[in-house]
Amino acid sequence: MKKSVKLVTIGGGSSYTPELVQGMINRSDKINISEWWFVDIEEGREKLEIVMSLAERMIKKSGLPWKIRYTLDRREALEGADFVTSQFRVGQLDARVLDESIPLSRGILGQETNGAGGIFKAFRTIQAYKEIIDDMKELCPDAWLVNFTNPAGIVTEALINQLGWKKSIGVCNIPIGQQKAAAKALSLKDNEVYTRHVGLNHFHFHQIWDINGQDRTAEVIERMYGDLREEPTETVKNIVNIDYSAKFLRSLNLLPCDYHRYYFVAPEMLEDSKKEFAKGKIRGLVVKEVEKELFELYQQPELDTKPKKLEERGGAYYSDIACEIICCMINHDNRVMTVSTANLGSIPALGYHDIGEMSCLITSAGPVPLVTPQIPKFITGNLQLMKKMELLTVEAAMTGNYEIALQAFMINPLIPHGDETEELLQELLLAHEQYLPQFAGDIERIKKECPKRVQAVKEIKAWIAKEEEKIYG
Amino acid sequence: MKKSVKLVTIGGGSSYTPELVQGMINRSDKINISEWWFVDIEEGREKLEIVMSLAERMIKKSGLPWKIRYTLDRREALEGADFVTSQFRVGQLDARVLDESIPLSRGILGQETNGAGGIFKAFRTIQAYKEIIDDMKELCPDAWLVNFTNPAGIVTEALINQLGWKKSIGVCNIPIGQQKAAAKALSLKDNEVYTRHVGLNHFHFHQIWDINGQDRTAEVIERMYGDLREEPTETVKNIVNIDYSAKFLRSLNLLPCDYHRYYFVAPEMLEDSKKEFAKGKIRGLVVKEVEKELFELYQQPELDTKPKKLEERGGAYYSDIACEIICCMINHDNRVMTVSTANLGSIPALGYHDIGEMSCLITSAGPVPLVTPQIPKFITGNLQLMKKMELLTVEAAMTGNYEIALQAFMINPLIPHGDETEELLQELLLAHEQYLPQFAGDIERIKKECPKRVQAVKEIKAWIAKEEEKIYG
Amino acid sequence: MKKSVKLVTIGGGSSYTPELVQGMINRSDKINISEWWFVDIEEGREKLEIVMSLAERMIKKSGLPWKIRYTLDRREALEGADFVTSQFRVGQLDARVLDESIPLSRGILGQETNGAGGIFKAFRTIQAYKEIIDDMKELCPDAWLVNFTNPAGIVTEALINQLGWKKSIGVCNIPIGQQKAAAKALSLKDNEVYTRHVGLNHFHFHQIWDINGQDRTAEVIERMYGDLREEPTETVKNIVNIDYSAKFLRSLNLLPCDYHRYYFVAPEMLEDSKKEFAKGKIRGLVVKEVEKELFELYQQPELDTKPKKLEERGGAYYSDIACEIICCMINHDNRVMTVSTANLGSIPALGYHDIGEMSCLITSAGPVPLVTPQIPKFITGNLQLMKKMELLTVEAAMTGNYEIALQAFMINPLIPHGDETEELLQELLLAHEQYLPQFAGDIERIKKECPKRVQAVKEIKAWIAKEEEKIYG
Amino acid sequence: MKKSVKLVTIGGGSSYTPELVQGMINRSDKINISEWWFVDIEEGREKLEIVMSLAERMIKKSGLPWKIRYTLDRREALEGADFVTSQFRVGQLDARVLDESIPLSRGILGQETNGAGGIFKAFRTIQAYKEIIDDMKELCPDAWLVNFTNPAGIVTEALINQLGWKKSIGVCNIPIGQQKAAAKALSLKDNEVYTRHVGLNHFHFHQIWDINGQDRTAEVIERMYGDLREEPTETVKNIVNIDYSAKFLRSLNLLPCDYHRYYFVAPEMLEDSKKEFAKGKIRGLVVKEVEKELFELYQQPELDTKPKKLEERGGAYYSDIACEIICCMINHDNRVMTVSTANLGSIPALGYHDIGEMSCLITSAGPVPLVTPQIPKFITGNLQLMKKMELLTVEAAMTGNYEIALQAFMINPLIPHGDETEELLQELLLAHEQYLPQFAGDIERIKKECPKRVQAVKEIKAWIAKEEEKIYG
Repeated sequence: MKKSVKLVTIGGGSSYTPELVQGMINRSDKINISEWWFVDIEEGREKLEIVMSLAERMIKKSGLPWKIRYTLDRREALEGADFVTSQFRVGQLDARVLDESIPLSRGILGQETNGAGGIFKAFRTIQAYKEIIDDMKELCPDAWLVNFTNPAGIVTEALINQLGWKKSIGVCNIPIGQQKAAAKALSLKDNEVYTRHVGLNHFHFHQIWDINGQDRTAEVIERMYGDLREEPTETVKNIVNIDYSAKFLRSLNLLPCDYHRYYFVAPEMLEDSKKEFAKGKIRGLVVKEVEKELFELYQQPELDTKPKKLEERGGAYYSDIACEIICCMINHDNRVMTVSTANLGSIPALGYHDIGEMSCLITSAGPVPLVTPQIPKFITGNLQLMKKMELLTVEAAMTGNYEIALQAFMINPLIPHGDETEELLQELLLAHEQYLPQFAGDIERIKKECPKRVQAVKEIKAWIAKEEEKIYG
Repeated sequence: MKKSVKLVTIGGGSSYTPELVQGMINRSDKINISEWWFVDIEEGREKLEIVMSLAERMIKKSGLPWKIRYTLDRREALEGADFVTSQFRVGQLDARVLDESIPLSRGILGQETNGAGGIFKAFRTIQAYKEIIDDMKELCPDAWLVNFTNPAGIVTEALINQLGWKKSIGVCNIPIGQQKAAAKALSLKDNEVYTRHVGLNHFHFHQIWDINGQDRTAEVIERMYGDLREEPTETVKNIVNIDYSAKFLRSLNLLPCDYHRYYFVAPEMLEDSKKEFAKGKIRGLVVKEVEKELFELYQQPELDTKPKKLEERGGAYYSDIACEIICCMINHDNRVMTVSTANLGSIPALGYHDIGEMSCLITSAGPVPLVTPQIPKFITGNLQLMKKMELLTVEAAMTGNYEIALQAFMINPLIPHGDETEELLQELLLAHEQYLPQFAGDIERIKKECPKRVQAVKEIKAWIAKEEEKIYG
Repeated sequence: MKKSVKLVTIGGGSSYTPELVQGMINRSDKINISEWWFVDIEEGREKLEIVMSLAERMIKKSGLPWKIRYTLDRREALEGADFVTSQFRVGQLDARVLDESIPLSRGILGQETNGAGGIFKAFRTIQAYKEIIDDMKELCPDAWLVNFTNPAGIVTEALINQLGWKKSIGVCNIPIGQQKAAAKALSLKDNEVYTRHVGLNHFHFHQIWDINGQDRTAEVIERMYGDLREEPTETVKNIVNIDYSAKFLRSLNLLPCDYHRYYFVAPEMLEDSKKEFAKGKIRGLVVKEVEKELFELYQQPELDTKPKKLEERGGAYYSDIACEIICCMINHDNRVMTVSTANLGSIPALGYHDIGEMSCLITSAGPVPLVTPQIPKFITGNLQLMKKMELLTVEAAMTGNYEIALQAFMINPLIPHGDETEELLQELLLAHEQYLPQFAGDIERIKKECPKRVQAVKEIKAWIAKEEEKIYG
Repeated sequence: MKKSVKLVTIGGGSSYTPELVQGMINRSDKINISEWWFVDIEEGREKLEIVMSLAERMIKKSGLPWKIRYTLDRREALEGADFVTSQFRVGQLDARVLDESIPLSRGILGQETNGAGGIFKAFRTIQAYKEIIDDMKELCPDAWLVNFTNPAGIVTEALINQLGWKKSIGVCNIPIGQQKAAAKALSLKDNEVYTRHVGLNHFHFHQIWDINGQDRTAEVIERMYGDLREEPTETVKNIVNIDYSAKFLRSLNLLPCDYHRYYFVAPEMLEDSKKEFAKGKIRGLVVKEVEKELFELYQQPELDTKPKKLEERGGAYYSDIACEIICCMINHDNRVMTVSTANLGSIPALGYHDIGEMSCLITSAGPVPLVTPQIPKFITGNLQLMKKMELLTVEAAMTGNYEIALQAFMINPLIPHGDETEELLQELLLAHEQYLPQFAGDIERIKKECPKRVQAVKEIKAWIAKEEEKIYG
């Protein structure tokens, strides 16, 4: 029998937790859990308690002898952990709403993992990780850290190359969704096709191969976006479905990521966001509603499985993939999965140590990248630019260097590059002040020097409050 | 005494020619010209005759024994040439006006060397060079080709790496202007400072050093764009002067190129262009007027020097630099100049064979790049993206591959990336049809399939005609 | 059930063939063979007939419905093949004896895959492949070619990058032997450890990992070469067992290849060879004897399995690995194996397209390299030098360029670099003249200009004949 | 007039000093020396006093107002220096004699800058530099350090990349000698040709160009080593003249360095060394004699110029080049010279920060490498290996890591790689114990564990003493 492992989940009060628990229950032939600790912070205590109660009902129903524990004391939980999963959200959904609203209030794209919002989510998350990693170095120095807090690629870059936690894996649900979508398009089973991914988290391209050795990418392009399409292609829940140019995709002969819409159907995506914003529709607010409903559901004492409703949340499979990776590592069964990890030569367009997202063999010693398909110049240039954006974001997050933060904004293709760039940066710094101690000095300076920015943030917060009132009355 | 050389100037009827002639006269101690041929095409015959007459007066005044010849037969001129300079403009200023107007009619930046217009200027120029190089291979296989037709970097990429003319040098007037501006800012003489350039034509950065071994870049940033500035910094004639963020430049600790405004003060530059366009002001039309006046001047029989007026034309020093390079090569006097040439390792962010623009030692065997200053990640990412844009442009120009042309548009940061991208591409193809035989098949297809694009081009041409009428009555 | 495949084995009359047949019989649950053709040339007809008769008895005994065919007409065999395996030896063992004897007659290492002999085996093999690949392009353009003719890495370099057969895989028995040896040293089962290889065929290093995620390399070094060793470590059959310095291996923290003895215990290995040579002992002659005995065995009508004796031949598992790879590809069952294939970034010290030998995931679309462990500077420098030696060898083999052949000799660390280098090159060219039409011109020149070389070859051939007479009487 | 500079020369008592002084006197129109300090250690006091007395007579004769000072207190001298030149020899010529004798006593090449001897000269020199650089950081943080202590390339690698003195320049007399030799071969003046160097100190290749833009390399190969040679080519004083294979050089189309003989005419060079050694002839002993005579000459009170005899010393021009570089830097007059400095992309086969030796523009801000000629695979592989040897040598010198020292020996092509490698390493460590405190621990261990090595060193020292007695009686 497999050896017993101790798991720790940081951000245990997340609405995703039931999926995570279900994922492990489904794999009980592959994993033997001695203890599973869930950690959250004081602000998340209530949610944590609700979720833990559901988790206990689920485990009980499964008949497994697994022990569930939860705590607000992270250090208590981490001691001796074998695997740590992380799904926390600094500042919770309110921070996301600000990430989305502030740019949109200027007509600039608001998106929580790309653009200005994604950069700030990285700033907050990396800051929080500094202390977590300090604890882990002391309490569980051999643990694997499976991170699915977004922006997962940028966060993994910080974890591995800056915070020095080599045993980090960045997880995303997009790649597995792409495999499933391609299988469906080809009328094959999920395990009759596989993907070969190359790129960065939320900015990768992929080929589709079938297990008879044939590259089916061109056919999938036609079936999903081109002449053979029968019905509109689905996207992930949080991205509006605006079509790629089939001609453009054919020219690359690679399939895009849903998030590429922000870059390659850019004016249309922005226009749509702006329209929604004008109507008071912000994805963060929508998710808040869904979460509210979910937690109501979770409290029903008869519920003892992951509720169907959770799949509407966006991010389906996220937790499931985390479970799969952990089980693959325990069993060393040579599965190939797409995760964020150190490049090490697999993507020649990126630096040797740079974190990329590519197909990897999952071994008991971690993910080992497979070499990636050769990419056209068009993608090389874009990847190189985007990776520098990620690296500048990480550098700014680690050091609190304001000028480097400005450079991250000035290189991000989803942010206009001019006078407004710095204004937007300043407003987001002000709005997230409490989570960004690394930028404290500059935030103080801005408060003094730029009363207009202070006022703008005040106004957007008031607007959000009003919109929330409309929803919840 | 220096050996005698045979010069050939293609595009001899250009308004720049008097500067070129003056440049050589000024260097008569360094060069000995046996014959100097000027070539143009039938459409340029009248201008050529006017300019040649002036050139003869200038030579005569100088007392030099140089022989001037002109012809519409390129092959007659090229035979046995030692140096060929090239300053032709395919489709003349009318093509430029279209490059500027068509994007602007959609609210997209119209600029003749960057953005969509620059890509199309490259398409036309590279197409024209195919035959010129065929002739040169036959008639003057050892000649050096000094090209200052824009976009000079992209054209040099095609000349050296695609058309196989290794002895090509791309020349631009921006770098020398930057040295002069920095010297002025530091209250030093021109020869007391020097630049170290790194990047691409119209997309390079530079340091300023004084000849005592000190890096003066930070000080120049303050004096030209920052706290020590006394008066507004000048730009080249054709670029509106909108300020860079001093904070941004300080963070790079490198000086920008005037053209970087289009990328780093982008919304403001676009807004200005759109305002001017709304008033019917197109740079191409302005230049047409200036040229008209210049040619009137050139015809005055008493004129026997380069008229002052020519400096208003934009592109001052262009021809002068061409003269300087030729004389440096003849005399092997170890001058350092900034030109477009093969990278060969000098800029590690670019491919080994990629054409870059960097400081080079000018030897009798051509320019030899000096290694370049290390650049911050921000610039690396931007250069890598921009170089791919250049390479895609060259590939499309050489092959007429429509999909690659679309990729060049989709990667160019000055063009929006969405549904409109292909529409803009199609309109420019239609507008320049006569100069783009390499795209003939796709142009035919567009004519059939896209009547809206045909109509749009018709309308913009009518609009231009009306604007010209306003000027010339 | 798996789809049926057509196999072709070139060099069917090899003494290895029974192992190959047995290998497939052992995997009959993973492969379904419609036809299996064995090809040889006229000189090998007798051996081919003997081996085929045995193969038929083996298949018959297995009860499998597989059809065995053999022919001297390669084109007849190749038509429509799915997999081609190749194990031919140009010039048979007599050529090997010359590769070994000529260098040793000068006190220079004689070895059939490394040094001067290996370069000449490559020259002959690549030359023979030119026609084979021409046939394959015409008759079975989609077939996979599994080559185990040595020097397998250099030959794969030629096949993929020069002859353009992308679907080539180079196979060697060393890596699997290393896994088995390490398992034994650690008292684990073969499938409880795995290797991570990096380098070139016959010049690779490896780590040993157990399936619990631990790097066991340091321990294996101690158990096989260091303080924990209990009994002498075995080597492959054809390499004398002279000990590595444990201190040296520890400093690398990587395990060597048996062939590294020629480079890192060089004077001792050379001394041993010279001593053996003085006694008339040449490995090629020993193998000739073994083969003679094997073919006598093969002719026994009651023999219907692979005889034990074959394992003495050297090269055990070679054919077995070929079988394994083919079955993995058919079944796409995600096995990791070490083969020679295109680097594609997996070994950053080598060029992107260079052939290396590294751990690969074997997919239905061929081997996909995994990124390799970081290597110390010592290994990087050696690999870079050795790869250039391989590339020069391939270039000389393809073009017949004598100067490049001289450079291959001058860079090979197993050949002294001085006046004798060219003399040795010339003697080997003369000795193998009939198999080296690409060098015909230079061979003619040498015959005319260098009577001493001609004489030396004559003498060494006479010496060999005498030695053979001693053996066979 | 040029600004006044303070010079410091470390190792002032060297026999080369008069050349250095003469060099500066000859350039008095380009340099204005306020103070020139010469430093040596107690053991060199007598020589220092002799040389200083001569130097003062030389300056006096020149009529220049320069102040000469000398001291055994390095710190007194360094304060406020603008330029420091370094020509010290740790352990003086006695150490060199050991570097040469110990390998040769085993039949292994003994050479003071390549092979085992060169590695040990680096060990001693880098160790001594640790304290010098500490002093310089404190006392003259802006000084340029011009090092001509050998092995100059390896020492520069340590200075720039390990000891952190970025303003270091490694100087060698070979390149200027090659330019002069080529000019002579072509019957041109020295300034009518120039070299383009690529490689490492004592391991570089070069092209010859004339100032009319023609590559004359092929012709120089023929005139110096090939069919057009009229008389034997000269080598530097300390290298025996054994011919390169013209065929080999033609195949590279690059000219070699004199030291390449040790690598590419290796058996012949070794044989010659061994023969000389058998006769008691060691280069170090020869030089000792020459030096003795030189110092007798220097003491003649009427001598007030550099004596002709010094040119026999080997290393002619060394000091002259140091003078030239300093004057070029002061005057920023765009001279191109070949020095050891950071690669920075100029030699793509080497790492970005690796020190190489290549043609550089000498500016007031130091040498700036020019991109180098493309090199054939043969040279690439050799350079990559040799650079790793240099890097391992530097690492061992800095850290005293015995295993890394062993790797430096195991990768050096001039040392046999087998059991003897470590024995040789141990003997050299014992012989130079007093200058190698970084290896103290291992030296103690060797003394205890390896009495045979101790004995061998004792014997070789006795042999040397006997040979010296033969000379001086």
